[in-house]
Amino acid sequence: MSLTYKAAGVDIGRADDALARVRERLRKTRRPEVIGDIGQFGGLFASPGADTVLVATTDGVGTKLEVARLLDRHEVVGTDLVHHCINDAMAMGAEPLFFLDYFSTSHLEPAVFARVVGAMADACARHRVALLGGETAEMPGMYAPGTYDLAGFLVGAVARDRVLGPERVREGDALIGIPSTGLHTNGYTLARTILARAAASETRSFEDLLGEARRDLDDRTIGDALLAPHRAYLDEFRALRDRARVHAIAHLTGGGWEGNLPRALPDGLGAEIDRGAWDVPRLFTLLAELGRVAIADAFDTWNMGIGLVVAIDADDRDNALAAIPDAYALGRVVTHTFGRRVRFV
Amino acid sequence: MSLTYKAAGVDIGRADDALARVRERLRKTRRPEVIGDIGQFGGLFASPGADTVLVATTDGVGTKLEVARLLDRHEVVGTDLVHHCINDAMAMGAEPLFFLDYFSTSHLEPAVFARVVGAMADACARHRVALLGGETAEMPGMYAPGTYDLAGFLVGAVARDRVLGPERVREGDALIGIPSTGLHTNGYTLARTILARAAASETRSFEDLLGEARRDLDDRTIGDALLAPHRAYLDEFRALRDRARVHAIAHLTGGGWEGNLPRALPDGLGAEIDRGAWDVPRLFTLLAELGRVAIADAFDTWNMGIGLVVAIDADDRDNALAAIPDAYALGRVVTHTFGRRVRFV
Repeated sequence: MSLTYKAAGVDIGRADDALARVRERLRKTRRPEVIGDIGQFGGLFASPGADTVLVATTDGVGTKLEVARLLDRHEVVGTDLVHHCINDAMAMGAEPLFFLDYFSTSHLEPAVFARVVGAMADACARHRVALLGGETAEMPGMYAPGTYDLAGFLVGAVARDRVLGPERVREGDALIGIPSTGLHTNGYTLARTILARAAASETRSFEDLLGEARRDLDDRTIGDALLAPHRAYLDEFRALRDRARVHAIAHLTGGGWEGNLPRALPDGLGAEIDRGAWDVPRLFTLLAELGRVAIADAFDTWNMGIGLVVAIDADDRDNALAAIPDAYALGRVVTHTFGRRVRFV
Repeated sequence: MSLTYKAAGVDIGRADDALARVRERLRKTRRPEVIGDIGQFGGLFASPGADTVLVATTDGVGTKLEVARLLDRHEVVGTDLVHHCINDAMAMGAEPLFFLDYFSTSHLEPAVFARVVGAMADACARHRVALLGGETAEMPGMYAPGTYDLAGFLVGAVARDRVLGPERVREGDALIGIPSTGLHTNGYTLARTILARAAASETRSFEDLLGEARRDLDDRTIGDALLAPHRAYLDEFRALRDRARVHAIAHLTGGGWEGNLPRALPDGLGAEIDRGAWDVPRLFTLLAELGRVAIADAFDTWNMGIGLVVAIDADDRDNALAAIPDAYALGRVVTHTFGRRVRFV
C-alpha cells in the first residue's frame, strides 16, 4: 500500500481547519505594533525603542491539563497559560506586548484546539497582548489519546529605569499579598495523587470525587475549585505602580513560597510572613488533610491562597493596601543569615 | 501515608540538578544586551531600538524526537530546535537575538536534559543567540517512559526598511535553493511509518533497520541519515544579503514545497522550479520507494534536499550563486492564476 503523510497520522488540512475556527478571535488580539498577517515564518512587531528592556518568559500549565481534560473544560488551560506568562513578565515590571503558543498532541481535534487556543486569544485580547504566532504539532504516538501539551511564550517591555527586582529591595520593605483563585497552575500532580488515593480508599472513581459538590468549598465541586483560572494581576499591578514605590514582585508558582519569594529578594535578606494575615482557603487545607501533607511541604508546593507577593517601600504600605481592595499586609523584609529565607511567624 | 510533591513524582531538586549541569554552557550564550542573571521571573534583554522590527517564532522538532531517543542521540534535537527557529526568523530578514526553550517530560532525567539543553546552548553560542530562559515541566503520566517534548521560541530583529517578504517579490525574480542536510525536522512520522513497515515486512526490528549501513547512503546508516542536524542558514543569509538584493525567503519545513514556498510569494505569483536543477538525495528517494509514496506527496511532506529557497532580483542571480558555493539556480517567479503555486518543470 502506498503511504501519504495523512495516512501516517499527520493531516495538515486538519491543522488548517483548526486554525480557521479561531481566526476571528486571533484577529481581535491585533495591536498597532503588529506588522503583516499571521502565517508568516515569523511574527512581526515594532520594537518599543532603545530606552526599554524586553522581558521574555515561557511557561506551561502542568498537569492541570489532565483535570481540564477529564472534566471537558479545555478553555481554562488556554486562559491559564496566557495569565501565567503575563504575571511572570509583570514580576519584572513589564507590560505585556506579544504572546506565542505551542500546542502539541498526537491526533489534532480541531474542536478541542479551537477551545484552547480560542481561550488564549480571548485572554490576550482582554489584556491587549498580540497573539503573534504559534506552532501546532501533531505527533502520532507521543501523547495518550485525548491529551495534549501547551507551552506559552510572552515578551513584554519596561522602561530601563523601571525594571523591578531584588536590587531595589531594602530591609524593612513591606510585603503585601494578593489572593490567588486556587492552585493556579502548580502542584496539580500532588493534588491529583491525593484525590486519586482518596477516591480509591472510598472505592469511588476519581471523576466521581471531582464532581462532588462540597459545603466547605462554598458548594462548588472539587473539580470546579481545581479548575479556577489562574488569576492575572495586571490591573492590580498597574494600580499599585501608580500609588506605591514597588520594588520587586514574586509570582508564587512551582516551588511555592520558598521556591519563589527569595527570587525577588537580594542576598542577605529574607521575608518574615505573618501566617495569621490571611486565611488559607479550604481547598488547600482539604488537600493537605486528605494527603496528610506536612504544612511546610504544602507551602513549598502550593501558593496557599496568595498568588502574588509585592515588596514596596514601607511608607507606601497603606497606599498600596488602599489601591488593591483584597490585598493583605503579609509582613516585611528582614535580614537573613542562614536556612530558609521565608520565615512564617 | 503522608504525601509530598516529590513522592507524587515531581522533584524540584532534580530540575535544579539538571540545570546545574549546563549552567556554564548557558553562560557562554550571554550577549551584551542581556541584563541580570538566569532564574528571574523573566529574562531581560535591552530593546534594539524603535527603528527595528522584532521577529518572533516558535517551533518544535516533531517526531524526530523518537528517532533521537531510540538511537540515544539526544543532542541533535537540541541543535535542531535552535536552528529551526533561527531560520524562521531569518526568513523575515532578522538576525537572532534571544531564545527560550520548553522541555516537558514525565520523569526528568538530568543526564538527558543536560545533553538536550546543553546542545541548545552550544547552538545558541555558535550563532550568538542569548539563551534567555526556559521552562522545565515534569508531568508524571503525560509522556511515555523516556520520552519528552521540546518547544523553542526565538526573537530576532531587522531594520524596519529591511524586512523581507512577499511584498518585495516581483515576477521574474530568480529563485535559488540551498541544500538541506536531510529531513531537517519535518516528515518524520511518515518516514518512521515507512521504515517500521519495511522492517516488519522483513521481520526485523525497527532499530535494526535504522542501524543498517547502506552503500547508497554513502555508507551511513539510515538512522544517521535521519539524524543529520537541521542546517542553520544564517551564514549563507548574511553572505547573500551582502551580495544580492534578497526579496523573500522560504524555509521549507512542515508542508514541504507547496506548504512553504507560497508563503514567500504575493497573491498572483507562483514559482516555476526546474526539477533537474538538483539531485534529490538518496534518503528521500529511498523513503519514497520503500513507502511507495507518490512523488507529489513526497514534495508536499519533505524538503527533498533543498532547505531554503531565496527570491532575489534576477540581475543578482550570478552574484548570489557565487556567494553560496553549494546553491542552485532553481527557477523563477512567474504569474499564477489557479491551482498549485509551485510548478515543477
